[in-house]
Amino acid sequence: MTPQKRSVFYLSDRTGITAETLGHSLLTQFDGITWSTVNVPFLDDIEQARAVLVQINQAAVDDGYRPLVFSTLLKPEILEVIKQANCRMYDFFETFIRSIEEELHQPFIRIAGRSHGQHHLSYFKRIAAVNYVLAHDDGVNSKHYVDADIILMGVSRSGKTPTCLYLGLQYGIAAANYPLTPDDMSVQQIPKILENVRSKLFGLTLTPAQLHFIRQERRPDSEYASLAQCQRELQWQEALFRQFDIPYLDTTRISIEEISAIILNRCGLRRQLYG
Amino acid sequence: MTPQKRSVFYLSDRTGITAETLGHSLLTQFDGITWSTVNVPFLDDIEQARAVLVQINQAAVDDGYRPLVFSTLLKPEILEVIKQANCRMYDFFETFIRSIEEELHQPFIRIAGRSHGQHHLSYFKRIAAVNYVLAHDDGVNSKHYVDADIILMGVSRSGKTPTCLYLGLQYGIAAANYPLTPDDMSVQQIPKILENVRSKLFGLTLTPAQLHFIRQERRPDSEYASLAQCQRELQWQEALFRQFDIPYLDTTRISIEEISAIILNRCGLRRQLYG
Repeated sequence: MTPQKRSVFYLSDRTGITAETLGHSLLTQFDGITWSTVNVPFLDDIEQARAVLVQINQAAVDDGYRPLVFSTLLKPEILEVIKQANCRMYDFFETFIRSIEEELHQPFIRIAGRSHGQHHLSYFKRIAAVNYVLAHDDGVNSKHYVDADIILMGVSRSGKTPTCLYLGLQYGIAAANYPLTPDDMSVQQIPKILENVRSKLFGLTLTPAQLHFIRQERRPDSEYASLAQCQRELQWQEALFRQFDIPYLDTTRISIEEISAIILNRCGLRRQLYG
Repeated sequence: MTPQKRSVFYLSDRTGITAETLGHSLLTQFDGITWSTVNVPFLDDIEQARAVLVQINQAAVDDGYRPLVFSTLLKPEILEVIKQANCRMYDFFETFIRSIEEELHQPFIRIAGRSHGQHHLSYFKRIAAVNYVLAHDDGVNSKHYVDADIILMGVSRSGKTPTCLYLGLQYGIAAANYPLTPDDMSVQQIPKILENVRSKLFGLTLTPAQLHFIRQERRPDSEYASLAQCQRELQWQEALFRQFDIPYLDTTRISIEEISAIILNRCGLRRQLYG
């Protein structure tokens, strides 16, 4: 049996991030369907809406199924056009906003893009956090570790840098990192430079096979990338984490979003999504 | 009149990113309310659910209003507990999933965290993009510009680096950047090094007042940060963008998410949210 092929449209007045987040969360709960995705952000004039209507109808003909349409559109005149299409529409605002109006005893303001714009203070906080991450990547400027909200530690290629950047960009967290090197392995001790910031430490680990795979990309067939070396380093760092009660996480099968959310949760750091 | 003070809870089996993104979109449509936010990610046992139930009920007493609860919980036994709380509950899965089941003629799989986990290929693609961004920040390694998906250009502190990092982390886009310097200003030309990649260029600009404010933080009361210098540089770069038909964006009042979505949209780059 050929898998069902279906089209999905994400329509928004602004970035489309909300529509896409909603639709993606729902559709990943269904297997065996091949999705053809069309993103239409910044949909705010009637002519453009009519073109999308034609595109939806054409997809319905091509697929043999009507498309699913996830919308965070706010303008009634745009919605009117789209509603004429041959589709199954999930209108995020329409679905929830009336009930929230009732609950809060006030009408909603119907201004697009409020959730991703106009966050002046948070914009500067995020930029400051990203600058902090960049200035303290890979053990650089370690004398400023006391200003960090968190310090990730792990061997080379354990995912410290992308995780720090995500924590900075998404949550405004000042995340530093310390690379554990073969030099550190000569002693079973926390590196001296980290002694007065022990409460901020969090370890990242992964399976030897995955570390080997990642390091192979960087320096193929080196001692550094060998499975045996990966095994040695990981075994050593995990023993260190356990001995000194440093919380740590195996990141092998999880995304950067999950790694970040788990770290914030375990460390009791206040998480606030910006954007 | 004192503003209404209300509590909002984001409950999730996994990271809580979906619940929070959706709830935040809805609540920003209402003004004049002070929100007290409680995030409960990784809520997956009954004991913990009972503790949250108590916390919700306490907030209702303290606020004098029942809390709003946004949930992407999937486990029926956890949901059962939370539904006993004195709250107004918005259940994102329950609301849409039955209708999607009908539309797709199949039951949903009820496995938490599908939207943020198990994206192995996309994980590597994102890491590679972040590594590309870091290796090509601030005009470094400009000989690799031909490999870039996009090259952001703008004067110092115009927001190139955070935007490039966001494009890499969130969309797996290889984003390089080129800093326009006072040296470039001596000629009204596209810098030589960018000539064969002109189709990939995108300019970032902002108001002189905001650039002045940002540069003051970095080098207070310097010539570099002076309003006059900011005005000169911005006027010059905007003239350059117009003369050479380089698309550009005024980022003064918008978030990194919006800047990124607008860039991808204008440049026709395929946007795909990971995570």
